[in-house]
Amino acid sequence: MEDPAAPLAGLRQQIDEVDQAVLELLARRLELVAEVGKVKGRHGVPIYAPEREAEMIAARRAQAEARGVPPDLVEDVLRRCMRASYTHERNVGFTQQAPGLGPVVIVGGAGRMGRLFARMLTLSGYQVRTLDAGDWERAEEIVDGAGLVLVSVPIHDTVEVIGQLPALPPDCLLADLTSTKRGPMAAMLQAHPGPVVGLHPMFGPDVDSFAKQVVAYCPGRDLSAADWLLEQIRLWGARLHPVEAEQHDHAMGLIQALRHFSTFAYGLHLAGEDRPLDELLALSSPIYRLELVMVGRLFAQDPGLYADIIMGSPEHLDLIERYHDRFAEALELLRQDDRDGFVARFREVGDWFGSYAERFLAESRSLLAHADSSR
Amino acid sequence: MEDPAAPLAGLRQQIDEVDQAVLELLARRLELVAEVGKVKGRHGVPIYAPEREAEMIAARRAQAEARGVPPDLVEDVLRRCMRASYTHERNVGFTQQAPGLGPVVIVGGAGRMGRLFARMLTLSGYQVRTLDAGDWERAEEIVDGAGLVLVSVPIHDTVEVIGQLPALPPDCLLADLTSTKRGPMAAMLQAHPGPVVGLHPMFGPDVDSFAKQVVAYCPGRDLSAADWLLEQIRLWGARLHPVEAEQHDHAMGLIQALRHFSTFAYGLHLAGEDRPLDELLALSSPIYRLELVMVGRLFAQDPGLYADIIMGSPEHLDLIERYHDRFAEALELLRQDDRDGFVARFREVGDWFGSYAERFLAESRSLLAHADSSR
Repeated sequence: MEDPAAPLAGLRQQIDEVDQAVLELLARRLELVAEVGKVKGRHGVPIYAPEREAEMIAARRAQAEARGVPPDLVEDVLRRCMRASYTHERNVGFTQQAPGLGPVVIVGGAGRMGRLFARMLTLSGYQVRTLDAGDWERAEEIVDGAGLVLVSVPIHDTVEVIGQLPALPPDCLLADLTSTKRGPMAAMLQAHPGPVVGLHPMFGPDVDSFAKQVVAYCPGRDLSAADWLLEQIRLWGARLHPVEAEQHDHAMGLIQALRHFSTFAYGLHLAGEDRPLDELLALSSPIYRLELVMVGRLFAQDPGLYADIIMGSPEHLDLIERYHDRFAEALELLRQDDRDGFVARFREVGDWFGSYAERFLAESRSLLAHADSSR
Repeated sequence: MEDPAAPLAGLRQQIDEVDQAVLELLARRLELVAEVGKVKGRHGVPIYAPEREAEMIAARRAQAEARGVPPDLVEDVLRRCMRASYTHERNVGFTQQAPGLGPVVIVGGAGRMGRLFARMLTLSGYQVRTLDAGDWERAEEIVDGAGLVLVSVPIHDTVEVIGQLPALPPDCLLADLTSTKRGPMAAMLQAHPGPVVGLHPMFGPDVDSFAKQVVAYCPGRDLSAADWLLEQIRLWGARLHPVEAEQHDHAMGLIQALRHFSTFAYGLHLAGEDRPLDELLALSSPIYRLELVMVGRLFAQDPGLYADIIMGSPEHLDLIERYHDRFAEALELLRQDDRDGFVARFREVGDWFGSYAERFLAESRSLLAHADSSR
């Protein structure tokens, strides 16, 4: 039988040439998108334009179909290019929504989240100052003439720090970035007679860009005075979601505190069972690896932050106690070997998730396919 | 100020032209890769060639760097193209590792996993028959002259079904696809004096392709007689991992039973707390959406399969009881408001994860970036 080496080498050479041509096109695309960024920046047009994105994708998918190329392939490549543009655009600058605003003071500006907001605000043309632990003697001087004071300190310090703020200019906007909202909102409304808004960026300081991230916000006082800030964050690419402080905290109990505590407990258990992680990973296909990734990733982060999130409210303890109780009920199904009971409860939960269950399965499948093909 | 509409439209037109050129190159690339697949198929060369992949990626990354294009962008696009090729190649055919083998009989071949293996074996040139619930009267006729009998029935039926098999040809290979191994291995070794191997595909029947998936296998008897099957699965792109039956089952307790039960209990709790899922999702950025996806996805699947996995062994109950106890210990930290204790335990678990914690954080970040940019 013929040796496959020569035909294979020839084909691979041709594939390499195609890939190099694709690289050139990617370079060209990034140049064009940078131009778009500049034009948008000059005119205050938001970076993220979902209708244009949807149009582009639909058009290319249709052409792919006609050309015999899997439409999903074209869409995924396109979306990956768009993501590269978001990151690129972040470094180009954003139109300043409130030109002439007094300086922005970030309290806790040396922290990672503080630094992230400092960078974004600077890229948007604001004059940014920071107020950190060693600066309190000069606090009055630092907030003099400020247009925005943004509190970004550890959760358990927030209320105290807000209380320590010197008097702010009457029309200065006071805001925070804390993961809980009832405490900080009450403290801010008390500390300052002027405009107040509470923010909660639902992401860590390690994100590539604000594009498609979520920032929850609580109106405090004179919401219209915060419009420029909300619009500025929209320009950065994030989705803003208004929510009342109490509702926010209830939701965060489920979304954050319960979730992180459960992951913490699960990690404790894996460590306690002490089966070599290497061995578990060797037996894990992409879905099972992802399950382990979602647990282990927690422990590369700051324990203090998670202690604060979980212990931030006595309601969290109640919520987690209820989880422990429900877990015990589920465990009883196992003890009784109650297969029918398990199946029945499983179906009830499926009903509660409704159409999201199938959607989530499809989303995870898509994600896992990317997991297969990512570094 | 000038109207941005005209310059933007012009730039978008140019971007569209670049994207259409990329589409053409993708089409060309797929054609070349299909040719590669044919050459490889003719010569029994495995599809997945990690060294060639690594070389290609390194070369294009270096060129991207020189061209001012983010290397990660080029790598991700390349990997997405390679993934498209795996799916494509699946439909082209695979070299038959055991030409002249007697027919393959898939017991439970009407089930989803059975159908998947039937398709892959057919694409690899084998003659495939199925033996399902209604075929038992003709079982002897069906297994006559068989080279492989592959058992793919629900977990709780497996041992019984193996026991019901008629006598197989002496050199026929008997194998299974069950998620537990001790029971099926013992049953197979008892039911057949010839070659026996246990398989456990660590993925569901919904996968795009076998590429990069994991199949655990337990040597039973005359492992060399199973070489062709293991090599065939490697040709399909999967990674084979040998493991002893008891070790396998212990590991699966952690990897599967504990994980799925925990997710089931968590879903039960979310449903019980009954906060509108829409609201939770509206407040969820990509990382938090992913946490919900990993829970909800379970409930779009077959409750019976998960009942079987979780209740498949009394050891699972013990393991899950221990989790419940450890959860209670962790809960005590909260009840005592023991922040220092929490932080100390958190760090211990971090030590147990070792360098995987950081790796997992990086992997999830990469995955989430793809989540942002996928459908």
